Amino acid sequence: MKEKLYGKLESSYEEMVSIRRYLHQHPELSFQEKNTARYIKSYYEKLGIEVRGNVGGNGVVAKINGGKPGKTVALRADFDALPIQDEKDVPYKSLVPGVMHACGHDGHTATLLVLAKCLHEMREELEGNYVMIHQHAEEYAPGGAITMIEDGCLEGVDVIFGSHLWATEPTGTIQYRVGPIMAAADRFEIIIQGQGGHGAQPHKTKDAIVTASHLVINLQQIVSRKVNPIDSAVVTVGSFVAENAFNVIADKAKLIGTVRTFNNEVRSFIEAEIERVVKGTCYTSDSSYEYTYERGYPAVVNHPEETQFLIDCAKQVPEVKKITETEPHMGGEDFAYYLQHVKGTFFFTGAKPSNAKETYPHHHPKFDFDEKAMLIAAKTLGTAAINYQSKQSNSEPATAKMV
Amino acid sequence: MKEKLYGKLESSYEEMVSIRRYLHQHPELSFQEKNTARYIKSYYEKLGIEVRGNVGGNGVVAKINGGKPGKTVALRADFDALPIQDEKDVPYKSLVPGVMHACGHDGHTATLLVLAKCLHEMREELEGNYVMIHQHAEEYAPGGAITMIEDGCLEGVDVIFGSHLWATEPTGTIQYRVGPIMAAADRFEIIIQGQGGHGAQPHKTKDAIVTASHLVINLQQIVSRKVNPIDSAVVTVGSFVAENAFNVIADKAKLIGTVRTFNNEVRSFIEAEIERVVKGTCYTSDSSYEYTYERGYPAVVNHPEETQFLIDCAKQVPEVKKITETEPHMGGEDFAYYLQHVKGTFFFTGAKPSNAKETYPHHHPKFDFDEKAMLIAAKTLGTAAINYQSKQSNSEPATAKMV
Amino acid sequence: MKEKLYGKLESSYEEMVSIRRYLHQHPELSFQEKNTARYIKSYYEKLGIEVRGNVGGNGVVAKINGGKPGKTVALRADFDALPIQDEKDVPYKSLVPGVMHACGHDGHTATLLVLAKCLHEMREELEGNYVMIHQHAEEYAPGGAITMIEDGCLEGVDVIFGSHLWATEPTGTIQYRVGPIMAAADRFEIIIQGQGGHGAQPHKTKDAIVTASHLVINLQQIVSRKVNPIDSAVVTVGSFVAENAFNVIADKAKLIGTVRTFNNEVRSFIEAEIERVVKGTCYTSDSSYEYTYERGYPAVVNHPEETQFLIDCAKQVPEVKKITETEPHMGGEDFAYYLQHVKGTFFFTGAKPSNAKETYPHHHPKFDFDEKAMLIAAKTLGTAAINYQSKQSNSEPATAKMV
Amino acid sequence: MKEKLYGKLESSYEEMVSIRRYLHQHPELSFQEKNTARYIKSYYEKLGIEVRGNVGGNGVVAKINGGKPGKTVALRADFDALPIQDEKDVPYKSLVPGVMHACGHDGHTATLLVLAKCLHEMREELEGNYVMIHQHAEEYAPGGAITMIEDGCLEGVDVIFGSHLWATEPTGTIQYRVGPIMAAADRFEIIIQGQGGHGAQPHKTKDAIVTASHLVINLQQIVSRKVNPIDSAVVTVGSFVAENAFNVIADKAKLIGTVRTFNNEVRSFIEAEIERVVKGTCYTSDSSYEYTYERGYPAVVNHPEETQFLIDCAKQVPEVKKITETEPHMGGEDFAYYLQHVKGTFFFTGAKPSNAKETYPHHHPKFDFDEKAMLIAAKTLGTAAINYQSKQSNSEPATAKMV
Repeated sequence: MKEKLYGKLESSYEEMVSIRRYLHQHPELSFQEKNTARYIKSYYEKLGIEVRGNVGGNGVVAKINGGKPGKTVALRADFDALPIQDEKDVPYKSLVPGVMHACGHDGHTATLLVLAKCLHEMREELEGNYVMIHQHAEEYAPGGAITMIEDGCLEGVDVIFGSHLWATEPTGTIQYRVGPIMAAADRFEIIIQGQGGHGAQPHKTKDAIVTASHLVINLQQIVSRKVNPIDSAVVTVGSFVAENAFNVIADKAKLIGTVRTFNNEVRSFIEAEIERVVKGTCYTSDSSYEYTYERGYPAVVNHPEETQFLIDCAKQVPEVKKITETEPHMGGEDFAYYLQHVKGTFFFTGAKPSNAKETYPHHHPKFDFDEKAMLIAAKTLGTAAINYQSKQSNSEPATAKMV
Repeated sequence: MKEKLYGKLESSYEEMVSIRRYLHQHPELSFQEKNTARYIKSYYEKLGIEVRGNVGGNGVVAKINGGKPGKTVALRADFDALPIQDEKDVPYKSLVPGVMHACGHDGHTATLLVLAKCLHEMREELEGNYVMIHQHAEEYAPGGAITMIEDGCLEGVDVIFGSHLWATEPTGTIQYRVGPIMAAADRFEIIIQGQGGHGAQPHKTKDAIVTASHLVINLQQIVSRKVNPIDSAVVTVGSFVAENAFNVIADKAKLIGTVRTFNNEVRSFIEAEIERVVKGTCYTSDSSYEYTYERGYPAVVNHPEETQFLIDCAKQVPEVKKITETEPHMGGEDFAYYLQHVKGTFFFTGAKPSNAKETYPHHHPKFDFDEKAMLIAAKTLGTAAINYQSKQSNSEPATAKMV
Repeated sequence: MKEKLYGKLESSYEEMVSIRRYLHQHPELSFQEKNTARYIKSYYEKLGIEVRGNVGGNGVVAKINGGKPGKTVALRADFDALPIQDEKDVPYKSLVPGVMHACGHDGHTATLLVLAKCLHEMREELEGNYVMIHQHAEEYAPGGAITMIEDGCLEGVDVIFGSHLWATEPTGTIQYRVGPIMAAADRFEIIIQGQGGHGAQPHKTKDAIVTASHLVINLQQIVSRKVNPIDSAVVTVGSFVAENAFNVIADKAKLIGTVRTFNNEVRSFIEAEIERVVKGTCYTSDSSYEYTYERGYPAVVNHPEETQFLIDCAKQVPEVKKITETEPHMGGEDFAYYLQHVKGTFFFTGAKPSNAKETYPHHHPKFDFDEKAMLIAAKTLGTAAINYQSKQSNSEPATAKMV
Repeated sequence: MKEKLYGKLESSYEEMVSIRRYLHQHPELSFQEKNTARYIKSYYEKLGIEVRGNVGGNGVVAKINGGKPGKTVALRADFDALPIQDEKDVPYKSLVPGVMHACGHDGHTATLLVLAKCLHEMREELEGNYVMIHQHAEEYAPGGAITMIEDGCLEGVDVIFGSHLWATEPTGTIQYRVGPIMAAADRFEIIIQGQGGHGAQPHKTKDAIVTASHLVINLQQIVSRKVNPIDSAVVTVGSFVAENAFNVIADKAKLIGTVRTFNNEVRSFIEAEIERVVKGTCYTSDSSYEYTYERGYPAVVNHPEETQFLIDCAKQVPEVKKITETEPHMGGEDFAYYLQHVKGTFFFTGAKPSNAKETYPHHHPKFDFDEKAMLIAAKTLGTAAINYQSKQSNSEPATAKMV
């Protein structure tokens, strides 16, 4: 059955490329993906596949019911683009000025649409059900996943898989990770309110620059002394502004920064600890403050058993030559939310352009990827979807018991 | 003779007020005081007093030769205004939008012009010579004093006296100080050049905000540990700018600040010490820097004997009720330069508006002063000018030997 | 064959306990383990097993050659005790005042001796060769491993396994980890030489306490900003001494601390980076320094394939109920050196006293462990030794290819 | 009359030297000066001068009533020695091991005794009364002055004068200062209580060394930013102790230091501000603290009119060649307390050994002074005592009105 799916996918490769290129030429920004959503919905409608639009916004969810009872497997692809001017010199270059599929979401969509078509063709012989989650707005917090989940996209779902084409890893490779694979990425803002005055009269002021400088230094201790050295965490002050004439003492300083963590306890701890440090530092200089902490996407935490299962599936795909554990990425991804509701795993599918002189990273104006990687992603996801029907659950989770 | 001068001054008080008010209505910014200079020159010309214009810029210097030989005494008044909108509700309010005599230089000029007129009338019976230095551009570094000196305004001068009307001290008071009475006010700029990057990858960067924060903290040691506690000094970072998105690490930070000192050794020490601290701090974080230090006016350092002499003269002025030692002021004044060339002293003449509900400080949009103080300043300066002819020099300076 | 070994071990359990208790009563400090070494050597000699004493000091190495050709597997047990007074109330309490087997090395030795005896009895039917490494001086750097290796204990060895009985994990569990399982533990010492003086005259001094305090703060950046957040590292200043009267300024401060890392690049980076920070900090305050960095044991880095192999073996041991991945331990272990020469893995065998009210950690005066764990360790090590003969090598290392 | 006194003093110079040398050979530590007190009392008794012993401890007070009515002038000399081993090679070297008159109090006592004798001889012709305050325990807080005052030594006193022989200024000079001449010298102690632990597990601890280091840095701001730059102040941490093994994290750190100020408001401000900084710093790291602040002697603040008066008197002493204003000294002196009760002034009498190769500072084991300076001190104090009877009080204090 797997071979049959592989054959169908191979035959549809041209279509996959053509869909991807169409989307690449017609990118839409996060939360504005009306046409892309319509395109996706219409694709399913033409095939007679059950589909629902406007799921939690611009989201689209299709469902294929196999001929036999079984589990419900969800596969997810995002479809929003970025506010970047396409600088590639290719025939399928973006037609929208200043907007570009610079992260491969066009490829994710093409992969999932064609995989759905093939599964649909094989539906009679399939066990279980298959939910295709086409998610809008991955690039821009709060993202589309939360509202799609609220709108029921995970109802009845037993497991979810998702992959990101990754242009800096060679085609033919898969990168997985048990546990956290992408960091939680939060934002904080601190305003120090001292008391300004003449640069020659410090004793009549509360120097906000001195206080804020102490604060920056004090914040270093959170990572160096307060977080378990085994846990990864970053606290960065990215912006420090207290702009004044040379001969005054600053009344105010504004700091903006980011926190990256892989673990929710560490995340909450740091959120609270920053406030402790701010409060103590301001007390020291008799100053006041405002502190706001905005949580971005949480860490993407892969489930161990499903990750191991995905690895086993990937080994069956002939084009997959190498499967490696990846270090966690510090970037954010709202796939995180799905994994808070159902089991599953998120992995990377190598998609490095083979003949390019230079590889451009994601979000680069010249970003592109190897389209053959879409076929590999489709086969891997398809294998996982089909194999999952016969998967035996382990009595103990993989972190706690070696299988 | 002193009494004769006092009588003449009293008779000319109305003229003094009228000159002051005319100037108050027609203020001109530093280095742009063409009309004011012309007005002053013309005043002298009409009286037949020897006068030279365009001295070192817009400066005007007049000279009165007494009928008998003697010493040459210089008196100085500055005449530039400030870029401040006059908000007072008085008939003599500034007629120039956004420009105002908000520091009393109009009063200084009126005082000196009328004093010169009176001395001129008495010239036959006077010993010595009297140089009236009308200085442009006191408010804006590098100031007018340097070029006026270069242009010869101090040639042949034995001693110089100058006074500032001071609107926050009561009329009838004089404030003096032996040694430093006004601080040297310098400006520095430090650019920290680190290496920017993604907020989640500190190890690939050299965080300029962390480095600059350490620098701000390290600079505190200069005053707290490096300068003799007996010496006054201020090192202020007034501006700290490293503006970026929340999720990046800053590549650059710019600090601007001021140094105030009363003593040239301390000043030079701090200039060098800041660089030491910057260099060490940048070495610590493998970053580079640019450091510039611009000297503003040096400290106004009054000569002890001449200060004591001035005090003795002030005691002879009937309107002077109280003579007090003042703490050094932290603001700058380019009278400093004259005192580097000839002996002399600079003092404050109390000029607090007696009937005002509220006193506004110098440089305030509602600043004003008690015009009667001009008469007191004129008498004090005049007394000093005349008495100086018969002054006996002491063999030892007053700081080292009590007289 | 495995079952036969298990049977023999079970029959010898009483002997194992008796050996362990004898050793427990007769502990010897690191590098002074003459009697223990003699005891071990004599045990082998009595059985007619080839044995060599004084290997790299007090080390003892025995060798069993199987009846058929095969690989050479080394098993390691350490046998030194600690300078701790035994406070347990048991019949086998230490007879040596102030010296105690407070880390379980007595158990390691008993386990290996009895396992060797059993393998020796089965030697005809065994493939390959078995090297029993009884190592002295694990507790005290530079440790016994280096010199035993220099003295040839690893000659011809294909793989090495070692286990530590772990009294805070339940009996019946095994803790493994691919890659670093125990940290490199280094020591540094920094002497800041400033210039002392009277507490009232900071300007004549170079305050060593201020400089050293800045240094402590500056060192925080190494972990917070300089090390990849994915890598674990600790930089601790454990001791700060600048003891003086209240009214002086310190001329000198002495800092002592430790660095913990799991990765040799990070270790070398931190060693160098501390010096950079010290140098820059001292430059800032015109002070000098002495810096020494002593490397302790390196990180114990388990080989992936051998670790996976060990896990598979452990699963075959009936008493092993749970096999878990452990977080890396921050303590040091000179097993690290063996793994720099041959492949292998180091793991923990749960040995928590089942009936004790309280569990005492290793190095505690009341430390004890569950002796049944020795049997589990013996079976696991024995299984690994025998199974290794038939192990198929993978073409790619496990970190880079999932097996 | 003044000349008569000078003549008598000159005739008694040998006696003065002999008394001084006797005392120098028989020094006694603060609060233990039984024999010295007896010696002084007995000197007065032999002359028939009214004298009281055990004043507020070991203090001795003598009184001479002039033949005519007048004001009551007190003169003070201290008489305790220091716990220093005398290393001078002179015939009058200390006979007491480890105890030495290393600060010149022997000279103060000899000066006052002989001056009293001479005044006593002239008593019939003198106006007013003369109180000789021989104070014990100046070197050791809380000092003898407080209890002597409580015990009535200042009763009826109108003015007090005191001088310190000063071995680093040339004989023939007097150093005076209006206002603060010697600093308040206080002591503080801060114990930071964090939470200790293993050096590899910072997250389980509250690192007292990091907290205390931040504290040292934060304290720098008090002088650099919080105190008026015109005011002198010193905050020194002289001792920082957190002594531990290299591989632990400190649970506790102890800081001891000193604060020097010349102004009581600044003093109180700093006492409170240190606590603010400690509290804020400890809040930041969730640690606790103990803070104690012990006030030493307050600043010696000379009264302006009496200082000017003393200067005028000193000018009349033929041996006084130079009278200079001194910078404030940072050391403490409990003469401060007398000046809190009555008007007066404290000054230095130059006493640099003229033929010595090297001058040793006060409290040095080789300290000595030029004995001729005793005569100068006696003449200056005597002149002040006698002249004070005819002194006209000024209506305004000298700081606020120039005389």
